Amino acid sequence: MSEKEKMMQKAIELSIKGSSEGKGGPFGAVVVKDGKIVGQGHNQVTSTNDPTAHAEVVAIRDACKNLGTFQLSDCELYTSCEPCPMCLGAIYWARPARVYYANTREDAAAVGFDDAFIYEEIPLPLSERKIEMIQLGREEAQKAFILWTEKENKVDY
Amino acid sequence: MSEKEKMMQKAIELSIKGSSEGKGGPFGAVVVKDGKIVGQGHNQVTSTNDPTAHAEVVAIRDACKNLGTFQLSDCELYTSCEPCPMCLGAIYWARPARVYYANTREDAAAVGFDDAFIYEEIPLPLSERKIEMIQLGREEAQKAFILWTEKENKVDY
Repeated sequence: MSEKEKMMQKAIELSIKGSSEGKGGPFGAVVVKDGKIVGQGHNQVTSTNDPTAHAEVVAIRDACKNLGTFQLSDCELYTSCEPCPMCLGAIYWARPARVYYANTREDAAAVGFDDAFIYEEIPLPLSERKIEMIQLGREEAQKAFILWTEKENKVDY
Repeated sequence: MSEKEKMMQKAIELSIKGSSEGKGGPFGAVVVKDGKIVGQGHNQVTSTNDPTAHAEVVAIRDACKNLGTFQLSDCELYTSCEPCPMCLGAIYWARPARVYYANTREDAAAVGFDDAFIYEEIPLPLSERKIEMIQLGREEAQKAFILWTEKENKVDY
């Protein structure tokens, strides 16, 4: 078994452990830096009442906490399933070097998860989405962005 | 000022408070149920080393914790800016009735945030994305999905 396969095996083991213990769906992930696991997680949506507690989000938060950073530029993410759009967004914000995944979004849909549906919704014009989105108060909200552009010593991300 | 405008004003106030106190970017959000705020948040990415701590994610997690649920079906989300794809994914998983937003993704891009870029990346075939995605170990990972389909008393989400 190659080093990469071993890391994926760890993510898969987490996916089975988490769901068998009733923590949430069958998904696991690890973050690897310099050949070592620096963060890990399994889905824990239903056990923690947190709809954002997908394996990748949990692993990214864990790695960032352990490394003391909000950027995972020198890291790789191994996940037992192709990330859903929420997790893919989290990946883009954390900016790891690359992502290894095992099951696909179609595999996830086949066992009852909304990943493929959400992938279809994201690119739609706001007016065509299943969850209604209504614009309100832009003029007032622009003040926050103007203050941000004028702010000194701000930390970009 | 209408009740909706008041709720959006609260989200905008959070966006200004969070960034002025150096907690993170200029974004705020509240979750409303039966006319009352049941969860709130501002961006705290850079102050907590958590790239997933966007205003909407923080507000959704806060509301779910306060209500003791992983579903916000009877709630509305007010956010000072159109949600990025990560937050939009989180919204689809939390399933609020509707979303009110103020600034747009283009407004966010104009002040230095990657929202519009990530919206362009999400629908791309995996092979064309800026962050490399490599499939590995699907056969092994399928075991977790088979166990899930056979699992009794599982909690769907």
